[in-house]
Amino acid sequence: MFDSGFGGLTVMRELIRLLPQEDIVYLGDTAHLPYGNKSPETVLQYALANASFLVEQKIKLLIIPCHTACCHALETLEQKLSIKVIGVIQPGLKLIQPFQRIAVLATTSTIESGIYQKAILKQNPAAKLIALPCPLFVPLIEEGFHDHPAANLVAHAYLDPIKEQIDGALLACTHYPLIRSTLSEVLGPRVTLVEPAAPCAMEAALYLKNNHLLNLQTTQPQYQFYASDDPEKFSRLGKIFFGSTLENVEKKQEFMKLF
Amino acid sequence: MFDSGFGGLTVMRELIRLLPQEDIVYLGDTAHLPYGNKSPETVLQYALANASFLVEQKIKLLIIPCHTACCHALETLEQKLSIKVIGVIQPGLKLIQPFQRIAVLATTSTIESGIYQKAILKQNPAAKLIALPCPLFVPLIEEGFHDHPAANLVAHAYLDPIKEQIDGALLACTHYPLIRSTLSEVLGPRVTLVEPAAPCAMEAALYLKNNHLLNLQTTQPQYQFYASDDPEKFSRLGKIFFGSTLENVEKKQEFMKLF
Repeated sequence: MFDSGFGGLTVMRELIRLLPQEDIVYLGDTAHLPYGNKSPETVLQYALANASFLVEQKIKLLIIPCHTACCHALETLEQKLSIKVIGVIQPGLKLIQPFQRIAVLATTSTIESGIYQKAILKQNPAAKLIALPCPLFVPLIEEGFHDHPAANLVAHAYLDPIKEQIDGALLACTHYPLIRSTLSEVLGPRVTLVEPAAPCAMEAALYLKNNHLLNLQTTQPQYQFYASDDPEKFSRLGKIFFGSTLENVEKKQEFMKLF
Repeated sequence: MFDSGFGGLTVMRELIRLLPQEDIVYLGDTAHLPYGNKSPETVLQYALANASFLVEQKIKLLIIPCHTACCHALETLEQKLSIKVIGVIQPGLKLIQPFQRIAVLATTSTIESGIYQKAILKQNPAAKLIALPCPLFVPLIEEGFHDHPAANLVAHAYLDPIKEQIDGALLACTHYPLIRSTLSEVLGPRVTLVEPAAPCAMEAALYLKNNHLLNLQTTQPQYQFYASDDPEKFSRLGKIFFGSTLENVEKKQEFMKLF
C-alpha cells in the first residue's frame, strides 16, 4: 500500500486486524506530501512512481488508502498493473448510500476531481450532495492540534454553513478519523459520520480469499515501511496514526544526480 | 529566484520596488511544497533542481527568499554556482542584532537546522534566544485563515509561553508577514517584529550596482513565473502574496516517464 504520508496507516491497522497473517509493505511518500493541494497530473505522477516501487517488491495486491491518489490515479493503475488494485472510493460509496442528504468532506484536490460527486449521484440521482474541501484538517492533525480549540474553530468555519443540510457525512480523507470527535461535536448527533477504512480492508480480505491468495503459513508476518523523506521522522509521526511503534522503516531513494 | 511556493513573492515585490528595471524569473516549486516539514537532504535536492533550472535561464544573480531552502542549500549553492547567490539569513541576522532577548519564528525544518541559533549566538554570545517552530502558520495563511480567530488561537498556543521572555522576534519564514497583525496582537507592543524582505532586496540591489550588473536599458521589465505544479493555481494563489495579477505563468516540467 502507498499513501502521501501517514493517513493510510489507519487503514493498515484495519488490514492487520482482518488479515493478521499477511506481510505488508507500506510506502509513505513524505517527500511530496501533502497530495491534497496538488494538481491531478502531479498526484498521478507520484502515484505511478509509488506503484512502480511497490511492484518491484513483488506485492500480490496493491491497496491505495489515500483518497486524493485514488481520485487521480486509481483508474490508470488498474489499467497499467497486472495485479489487483483496491482503493477507498468504492467502500466509501457503499457506506454513504443509505443517506439522502450527504456531505463529502475531503482535501481540495479530491473535491476538485469531482469523482465522489459523480459516483454518488450515479448511485442515487436524487441525493442532495455537498462536496466540501476542508484543507486545514490535515495540517492540524499532523501538527497534533486535532483536539485543540483552534481545530474546533476551523471545523465550525467549514461545517456550520452546511450542517443543517445533511444527514450523513463521508470522511473522504484518511486523516479525518483522527479529528472525528471534533467533527461529531460540531455536526451534532443528527449527522452520521462514515469512513471507509474497515470496508476497504474487508474488500482486500475477500479478494485474497476468493482468489486463493491468502497466506496460510503461520509464521510471524513482516511489516516493512518505506518513506521517501526522513525515515526517522516517519517513524516518530507515524506512531500517532498506527497506534504503536513502527519497526523497519527505510528510505526510498529517488533523486537523480544534479550538477 | 526560487521558493517552495508563494511566500517568496513578498520578497519579489520588494525587489521590484528597488530594481524596477530588472527582469525577474520566479520559480515556485509547488509540486513539492511545503519545504518546512521536509528533511535537510530532501530540501537540498529540491533546491539543486530549482537552481539548475534557473541557471539554464541565464540569470545573473540567484535570490533564495525561502528560509528553509537557505538553511539547507545556500552554502552548497554558493560553492556550486558561478553566479552570486543571495539568501534571507544574513539580512535577518542584521535586523535582529539590536535585541538581547530574541525569538526566531520559523518552520520546523528551519528551526531543526540550527542555522539561526548558531549565527545569532555567534554575533551576540550573550543573546537570550528562543527558536520556535510554528508549522501551522503556513497552511493557515495559504488557506486564507490568517485573519480568522483560529489563527489567533494557534498564535496564542505557540507564543503565549514565550512572549514575556523576548523583546524582538525574527519572522524567519517568507509567509509570516501575512500573519503579522495577528502575531503583533498576540505578542503585544513590547515585542518588535522584524522580517528580512526589504534588506534582502537591498543586498541584491547593492550587489548588482557594485558589480556593474544593473540593467540600464529603459525597456519594460519582463517577469516570468514558473510553477512545478499547476500554473493556473499558482496564478490564483500567488495573487494574494504578490498583490497583483501574475502574468506569464508556465509549468516547469520535471517528471520522468514511468511504466
